[in-house]
Amino acid sequence: MTSDNTPIKPWIRTILPEISPPSLKDNTADVDRLIRGIKKSLKTEKVEIAFSQIREIPRILTQNKYHVKVALYETDGVWRLIDLFSPDTEHHIYGVSIDLGSSTVVVRLINLDSGAAVDEFSFHNPQIQIGPDILTRIHYAAREGGLKELKDLLVERINKEIIQLAGKHGITPNSIVGMAVAGNTTMTHLFLGLDPYRICREPYIPVVNRLDILKAFQLEIIINPQAPVLVFPNIGSYFGGDLIAGILSSGMSHKNQVSFLIDVGTNAEVVIGNNDWMMACAGAAGPALEGGVAGMGMMAGPGVIDKVVIDPETLAFDIRTIGGLLPIGICGSGLIDLVAQLFLSGMIDLRGKFVRNRCMDRLTDIDEIRQLVIVYPEDSGTGRALCLSQPDIDALIRSKAAMYTILTTISNTVSIPFTEIETFYVAGTFGTYIDPRSAIVIGMIPDRPLETYVPLGNTSLEGATMALVSCSARDEIFQIRDKITYIELNVNQEFMNLFSAAKFIPHTDKALFPSVRVKEYGR
Amino acid sequence: MTSDNTPIKPWIRTILPEISPPSLKDNTADVDRLIRGIKKSLKTEKVEIAFSQIREIPRILTQNKYHVKVALYETDGVWRLIDLFSPDTEHHIYGVSIDLGSSTVVVRLINLDSGAAVDEFSFHNPQIQIGPDILTRIHYAAREGGLKELKDLLVERINKEIIQLAGKHGITPNSIVGMAVAGNTTMTHLFLGLDPYRICREPYIPVVNRLDILKAFQLEIIINPQAPVLVFPNIGSYFGGDLIAGILSSGMSHKNQVSFLIDVGTNAEVVIGNNDWMMACAGAAGPALEGGVAGMGMMAGPGVIDKVVIDPETLAFDIRTIGGLLPIGICGSGLIDLVAQLFLSGMIDLRGKFVRNRCMDRLTDIDEIRQLVIVYPEDSGTGRALCLSQPDIDALIRSKAAMYTILTTISNTVSIPFTEIETFYVAGTFGTYIDPRSAIVIGMIPDRPLETYVPLGNTSLEGATMALVSCSARDEIFQIRDKITYIELNVNQEFMNLFSAAKFIPHTDKALFPSVRVKEYGR
Repeated sequence: MTSDNTPIKPWIRTILPEISPPSLKDNTADVDRLIRGIKKSLKTEKVEIAFSQIREIPRILTQNKYHVKVALYETDGVWRLIDLFSPDTEHHIYGVSIDLGSSTVVVRLINLDSGAAVDEFSFHNPQIQIGPDILTRIHYAAREGGLKELKDLLVERINKEIIQLAGKHGITPNSIVGMAVAGNTTMTHLFLGLDPYRICREPYIPVVNRLDILKAFQLEIIINPQAPVLVFPNIGSYFGGDLIAGILSSGMSHKNQVSFLIDVGTNAEVVIGNNDWMMACAGAAGPALEGGVAGMGMMAGPGVIDKVVIDPETLAFDIRTIGGLLPIGICGSGLIDLVAQLFLSGMIDLRGKFVRNRCMDRLTDIDEIRQLVIVYPEDSGTGRALCLSQPDIDALIRSKAAMYTILTTISNTVSIPFTEIETFYVAGTFGTYIDPRSAIVIGMIPDRPLETYVPLGNTSLEGATMALVSCSARDEIFQIRDKITYIELNVNQEFMNLFSAAKFIPHTDKALFPSVRVKEYGR
Repeated sequence: MTSDNTPIKPWIRTILPEISPPSLKDNTADVDRLIRGIKKSLKTEKVEIAFSQIREIPRILTQNKYHVKVALYETDGVWRLIDLFSPDTEHHIYGVSIDLGSSTVVVRLINLDSGAAVDEFSFHNPQIQIGPDILTRIHYAAREGGLKELKDLLVERINKEIIQLAGKHGITPNSIVGMAVAGNTTMTHLFLGLDPYRICREPYIPVVNRLDILKAFQLEIIINPQAPVLVFPNIGSYFGGDLIAGILSSGMSHKNQVSFLIDVGTNAEVVIGNNDWMMACAGAAGPALEGGVAGMGMMAGPGVIDKVVIDPETLAFDIRTIGGLLPIGICGSGLIDLVAQLFLSGMIDLRGKFVRNRCMDRLTDIDEIRQLVIVYPEDSGTGRALCLSQPDIDALIRSKAAMYTILTTISNTVSIPFTEIETFYVAGTFGTYIDPRSAIVIGMIPDRPLETYVPLGNTSLEGATMALVSCSARDEIFQIRDKITYIELNVNQEFMNLFSAAKFIPHTDKALFPSVRVKEYGR
């Protein structure tokens, strides 16, 4: 997705070096002979072979009569040996890019000779069985053996999925010679077996911001043991490699125009900038936007409500679910849709409170909590009514207010009003499903023309893939990291004032949302 | 022993970097914070920390309130972390240099803060129990498990001796943070667990000529696991790191004048050159010069004859032994002395044959082999007579002829006569004990003034020590390696002619040895 069209220069590749067999006139050692051939072939002075690789080289060279295919990777101008293959094999070399989400992990298999994706597979992060949220996992990691357990759960599952994916395409793990991994800072720490303890405690520091390229065997990833593993760097505890992958994937760091990048999740993460400068900011938005708290909230999946339309005249609910099944719950994007529709149809007011004479008999009290029946038991996939409670709405409003306040704060900080921003990139799979119109209606994002919002899909996976196949993309992630000024969000009086003003639908200042017009229904 | 007097710049050192503790205003990760402090302290841009070291860094930093002593080593302009220590410790950092001889291994403990030797210990190479000579060990290595057994024998013994040596001085293995190892090519391969199989088979190639700096844990050396281990490079199967250490230690590569470096052993290894150029040559001399074949021959040790004087008039033998004990055998230098004295006293002729009317009743036949009694049973530490046989003398003559021929060949090749050489450095512990006068008398080395011959002692250990403590000495060994032109000794007709002429005492061409004058005794 980068804008330039120069051919991609790989940093993981194979060559067929010319290596003359040894003779009495040229008794250079086998390893030095191989290095000499590689240097000549790559026109480089810097080639490194790990000590553990040396032992087998004479055997492989002599067995293949000194004609070998050599897989190498480059880092800091040094080419390092990954493996030697027989030159007759028709086989390609492959790589794996991984989006390390706290909820969902996606593994993509890539042909490194062509740069093309072969296949991909996504699965729930197995650490969910320890704790659905990051904080629970951080606490668990502090227990005796907890960190190792969390790491092993993840690594073993990733290994299993890689093997299945490779096996499906007749690819041996040994021919997978590279990996790139993007995730948030905590997930990355857990993947690496590094203690995340201080990430969530003042002064909120990770163990490490940027790592050198690792090798698969160091992480117990069972692809080629000498395969390089690029782990995306982070900027801090609350701004991880997934976001850097997002910036890379958006191409915003190549543009003259200033763009926003928004990642909506438990944390609202926002980047603003262009090819000159970048500022980033992140703040807690709560799990409501991800459907994490609502009584009927759940992660996207079959039967989950992802789209709601309410006829403002008849107040009839038109409910769409994933796979068209009977509804069993609602995901974050469905919830944003639902609340926007409730507001537009006058069923909730600008404070998000249920309007009795619009809600009518859909309104009920369960356990002394006011609830709105969204799906009646007879239409429900669970056999029970699916309800939205007043606290659910309150939580969503706090979350959307946090997002809008963070956007306002960063816009104020750089003195660039929303109207001067041509593009708001929306990162993450979740971003793909949000209807920007609904998000505008509830006042979560600025009231800009819909085409201003560009959903990018899984930018973490896309960025990881780009960095795996391209030398310049890989180098760029470290440039992006060093270029970003991270703004620590001071929850001061000004922030609280902005936040309070944003806790209305769409906002106390209606002039900020001119497109959101609500018919006055009798109350 | 290098000629320049500039202060030694170490490549293994400690620093006390300034590291500010993290705060909300500076939440750089611990590892990156440490790297930042090191970069500032060393004024460098390149600092590397291994992945395996990262895990413990936050704990050590916080426990020490971010005041730590950091041990690092430099290679290729990159400073790499060895370990973190508490800053209050009075303790120094230490290193170990090793001379990896096929017969004797010497371990020296060095204070890396001062560069001074603390202590050293030498012991028989435990691989001797597998085979006294290199070839037997190479064959043994080809057996199932043989290579590992040879490696383990050596490494375990080295570990044991290092621990004893360190313990004696109250030094913990963890504070030993560097190692340098010099040995011949086969010994180095066996130490590294690399198959020496092809070293002794055409076209005689090692597995590797030069290695990057390794780490102690890779070699199962139980000093600080992250300690760098510098393994001396080789030029080929027959020109090893011990010789490169010898050249370094001699300082000949800094001089304008052309010098010779001679290492006498089973192989005669010879280097000629100056600060501009270097040529090297090695050839089999047989084990005679090391006392390896003579019936009474043995390695230097208590009771071993190392000096012999025969009164040419009375033919009385004046025999000196190591430690002044009753004689039990003779070492190489003693053998050279003995044969020179036998020749000067007319007891052997210029072909090395016993002269009956000078040897008289010392001459006897044992097992149909002519022998000369050197020590009578009553004067012997073994209770038996110590005898020198005709084949012993013949073997020594072949060995000394090989050495002289190699010297002549290389001198002819570069067209520099012996008379233009101001210094002949004699390397090796053995070289220290050879009486150059005796060696001239038997025609093993050119007839030059005695002060021309400079014994250097254990140049392998000395060179390893220099390279361990000094950055420039370390870099120089690779420059020396790349500078040397290795001359493959063609055993052609010309060589054979020179060799035949040298198989006399001192030589067929008496003009070459004007100082060796023998009184004509009646025969």
